[in-house]
Amino acid sequence: MNLSISDPAVQAFILHSAILAVKLLAMSPLTAIMRLTYKCFANPEDAKFLGGKVKLDHPSVERVRRAHLNDLENIPAFWVIGACYLTTGPSAAFANLLFRLFTVCRIVHTFVYAVVPFPQPTRAIVFLIAMGINFYMGLQVLLFYMI
Amino acid sequence: MNLSISDPAVQAFILHSAILAVKLLAMSPLTAIMRLTYKCFANPEDAKFLGGKVKLDHPSVERVRRAHLNDLENIPAFWVIGACYLTTGPSAAFANLLFRLFTVCRIVHTFVYAVVPFPQPTRAIVFLIAMGINFYMGLQVLLFYMI
Amino acid sequence: MNLSISDPAVQAFILHSAILAVKLLAMSPLTAIMRLTYKCFANPEDAKFLGGKVKLDHPSVERVRRAHLNDLENIPAFWVIGACYLTTGPSAAFANLLFRLFTVCRIVHTFVYAVVPFPQPTRAIVFLIAMGINFYMGLQVLLFYMI
Repeated sequence: MNLSISDPAVQAFILHSAILAVKLLAMSPLTAIMRLTYKCFANPEDAKFLGGKVKLDHPSVERVRRAHLNDLENIPAFWVIGACYLTTGPSAAFANLLFRLFTVCRIVHTFVYAVVPFPQPTRAIVFLIAMGINFYMGLQVLLFYMI
Repeated sequence: MNLSISDPAVQAFILHSAILAVKLLAMSPLTAIMRLTYKCFANPEDAKFLGGKVKLDHPSVERVRRAHLNDLENIPAFWVIGACYLTTGPSAAFANLLFRLFTVCRIVHTFVYAVVPFPQPTRAIVFLIAMGINFYMGLQVLLFYMI
Repeated sequence: MNLSISDPAVQAFILHSAILAVKLLAMSPLTAIMRLTYKCFANPEDAKFLGGKVKLDHPSVERVRRAHLNDLENIPAFWVIGACYLTTGPSAAFANLLFRLFTVCRIVHTFVYAVVPFPQPTRAIVFLIAMGINFYMGLQVLLFYMI
């Protein structure tokens, strides 16, 4: 069996991967907005240019940075596991459902973590659903290629 | 020449990429275990929900986070360089050896860094072997496509 | 339409992806040089082995680490968005131009951030050009697969 970029599951994967990539990249402007709002910069040359001070522990800036790092810990793993998962021949409808649910959870995760902080366990729930999808697809790939 | 997901080298790459992705993802539960053990959380809403305090510099938690970040610095690069390396037509046996050695080194790296801290140079050795494999494959790709 | 690794745009993508991966990996030796120069290490076992102290806030070391993290925030997104972008059938010459410009900007970014700190807005300009290329390609992929 080979994959083609005209397969519905592959197209769904490309679309959701791109949405997640744009979402991940959007964390940089969000950090910049926070740094400009609170005039807290990470480098002396930035503080000098934009008029502010060097401060590495502003709570609102660090919150956005933690959300960003959490994306880096989960989204690239999705890109690779998702692509490997496609090679195991899942049904297009089910793969699409997993990709969509993962994407929605990661977008909600950012919102409740970095935009409007929600009380727990909101963030924990969407984090765990997305993590569970990654682990489920990873397990499917390991079972398919190891046995 | 084109690649097929039925090629042995491609299958070895998919398998090892998935093992590394699952290993990378496992750092999140490991961090959670540390945070719950030491009751040190990164966000006020987490500390409130789980009963603990906000503390960003607990040595055991930060050690796991450094191991996690080190994975992010090395494993995604492997995913991309490994895939590019496959397109240069290496022997399946040698490619498989590199993928397996990289994977073993990164798993040992996590163990001696974040689970049971070993005296140096244990961690340095496994780090450098994995790094060397990444650089070797990267060099092969550059030579293949630049010349 | 399907892609082949003999397509010029795909070959350009593989080459630039590998250059970026090697550039990203090179941040680790750069950090090591800084840590050895200033004798500032992140772990007690490293400080013991190499003769130095544990210090997590040396400005020159942290500057390299921020440049490294900035790479992790932008380069893996490029790998995925670039690959998705290829599936939308761009002209090889234009795709090659985008890949090359992105790569040059990210290399200059590292140089003016971590090697020889330049006054702003030098770093901001190369950062924004690379970010703009990522967003442009991401938008093209979303338009292609959503409509």
